[in-house]
Amino acid sequence: MASDMYAVVLAGGGGTRLWPLSRRARPKPFLPLLGAESLFQLTLRRLVPLIQTEDTIVVAEQGHLPLVSEQAPELLSRHLVGEPVGRNTAAAIALAALTSQRGPEEVMIVLPADHFIADEAGFRSVLSAAANAAGDGSLVTLGINATGPETGYGYIVGGEGAVSEHGARHVDRFVEKPPRERATKLLADPRGAWWNAGIFVWRHDALIDGLERHAPAIIGPIKRGLEAGQSLRSIYEMLPDVSIDRALLEPASLEGAVRVVPTDVGWSDLGSWDALHRALAGRSGSLDGVVAVGRAEDLSSQGVLTHSSGGRLVVTVGLRDTIVVDTPDVVLICASDRAQDVRAIVDRLAEAKETDYL
Amino acid sequence: MASDMYAVVLAGGGGTRLWPLSRRARPKPFLPLLGAESLFQLTLRRLVPLIQTEDTIVVAEQGHLPLVSEQAPELLSRHLVGEPVGRNTAAAIALAALTSQRGPEEVMIVLPADHFIADEAGFRSVLSAAANAAGDGSLVTLGINATGPETGYGYIVGGEGAVSEHGARHVDRFVEKPPRERATKLLADPRGAWWNAGIFVWRHDALIDGLERHAPAIIGPIKRGLEAGQSLRSIYEMLPDVSIDRALLEPASLEGAVRVVPTDVGWSDLGSWDALHRALAGRSGSLDGVVAVGRAEDLSSQGVLTHSSGGRLVVTVGLRDTIVVDTPDVVLICASDRAQDVRAIVDRLAEAKETDYL
Repeated sequence: MASDMYAVVLAGGGGTRLWPLSRRARPKPFLPLLGAESLFQLTLRRLVPLIQTEDTIVVAEQGHLPLVSEQAPELLSRHLVGEPVGRNTAAAIALAALTSQRGPEEVMIVLPADHFIADEAGFRSVLSAAANAAGDGSLVTLGINATGPETGYGYIVGGEGAVSEHGARHVDRFVEKPPRERATKLLADPRGAWWNAGIFVWRHDALIDGLERHAPAIIGPIKRGLEAGQSLRSIYEMLPDVSIDRALLEPASLEGAVRVVPTDVGWSDLGSWDALHRALAGRSGSLDGVVAVGRAEDLSSQGVLTHSSGGRLVVTVGLRDTIVVDTPDVVLICASDRAQDVRAIVDRLAEAKETDYL
Repeated sequence: MASDMYAVVLAGGGGTRLWPLSRRARPKPFLPLLGAESLFQLTLRRLVPLIQTEDTIVVAEQGHLPLVSEQAPELLSRHLVGEPVGRNTAAAIALAALTSQRGPEEVMIVLPADHFIADEAGFRSVLSAAANAAGDGSLVTLGINATGPETGYGYIVGGEGAVSEHGARHVDRFVEKPPRERATKLLADPRGAWWNAGIFVWRHDALIDGLERHAPAIIGPIKRGLEAGQSLRSIYEMLPDVSIDRALLEPASLEGAVRVVPTDVGWSDLGSWDALHRALAGRSGSLDGVVAVGRAEDLSSQGVLTHSSGGRLVVTVGLRDTIVVDTPDVVLICASDRAQDVRAIVDRLAEAKETDYL
């Protein structure tokens, strides 16, 4: 290992399309989507033994810190970083770095708290390789092996230059969510193209230097505000809402400072019920695609996810490609190919001021 | 009106295919299938003003009498007849007649407590006509206008002979649930064929005479047992389990004593969730066949029944021909064309001794 490592877990993200399980008071990272443990808890546990819990920092909205403590009481309380409002990933990562009291050569691993990874040992191997590749000061991203020209993800495009001994490749540029035709072209690029999962590995000093060069409007106010003893709320009011991809990685890639480590570990962002269904069906190896979280009985269905966290028995008979989500106060039944439309139901309830259900 | 009338409402029938709403402790007649009121309550109310509640007798299992009183506190308590065990309709009707203290010329209307009738005024008109036709001592049945060669019902086949001024026709014979081919042939019979809904109209004395001629093994033990002050349990132990159709109407029809009044009132036996769906969709005139009992929201589904009695919001998105039943401890989601298979789920739970759900 090149040096000491620590993790910054970003526990934001609402997950509207995972309604009715996800609610304003308990967003996606804190949901037991896969069973007993929440995605956040699984994210922490997946890092061990590569990174211990005492080396893990969590950034979340202040209002969600009680959930963080409840779900991970083993975290050091000084490692809980509460944001007064969400200001996207650039601010969250800069704040975590500046308050982390870590040495310049230590390697920071940034990762979202709401993803699924089937091959956990493989994932830790990739992180180790990325940490080694980051030893020279490169900004390293994981590049998810694309399974198709999805339009919902950002893409990382490979560049010229030798592959490092750790498997890291040069990055030519980042492309934000492309239309399908462009995604297909990107994947045909002989230099390689991967999905951007928002998982980054870099030395602490490389991050700070990069932010000072490319994103002074973010790191500047935070650094000066912390030194002056300003409240986070007043600091955050001055910050732009911008992702770390756009604030740091895109400009740094133009200078040849970014590397990508291709990653094939059964990743999913679990962005919708349909994505959860695919992740669980893959894990269980279910032939008929009938998978259940919670108590369920089925008779001759195909392609059904039942997710029961309301304590009830969910019984399905003769269904095809359907998602059933049971919660204490709402039951959702949705055609799998309409999983994106869950958002429209949430919008409708918000318009009707049905706040109990939001 | 030919004479005074009274009603005998048979509140038996489990309704396994209406699980998980129907349970052993609260079978079909006592369920609020159509909304606020139970089928039993709707049955009583549908009779008024033809027959008042004080002229209505209810036969139910003894264990269900508390449900009867709770749902119809206006019934006279001497009109609640509790059976120690179910012994089918012949025993229930004989017991009601012998304990009714009604005059020989009074007209008894027998009807199940678990049917749906869309045209309630039309139904009362048919009953009036049937009561008039019963004035000469005929045993009169209602014959439901068949909408297709259903195999789940018994058929009444018309006979030779003039149609009475009340629209009653001679009955040639009864046919128990026929296979489809035979049902199709029956419906092509120029003399007419109708579904048997188990709704009968006859003079009190005609019923007693008929039972004494054709079913002495039923009326005999009840009459003698009641006179001797025997317990109903010991009387019932001696009775055969046979329907009134088979015990009385089939043999009486061979003697030309039975009449049928054709009936077109939007009848359904609500035998399964699918049947309930059709009855409700017909009543609501819903173009897309999306109907709800209880709190529900839908986005672009077609042919969906949601039945929520668990107090939860049921949300459906993009479904086709699906039934959703939400209860406090079970949620059922069933393809409409598999509604008959609900029984198989109940059997499976019974085998697994999941008695909480039965």
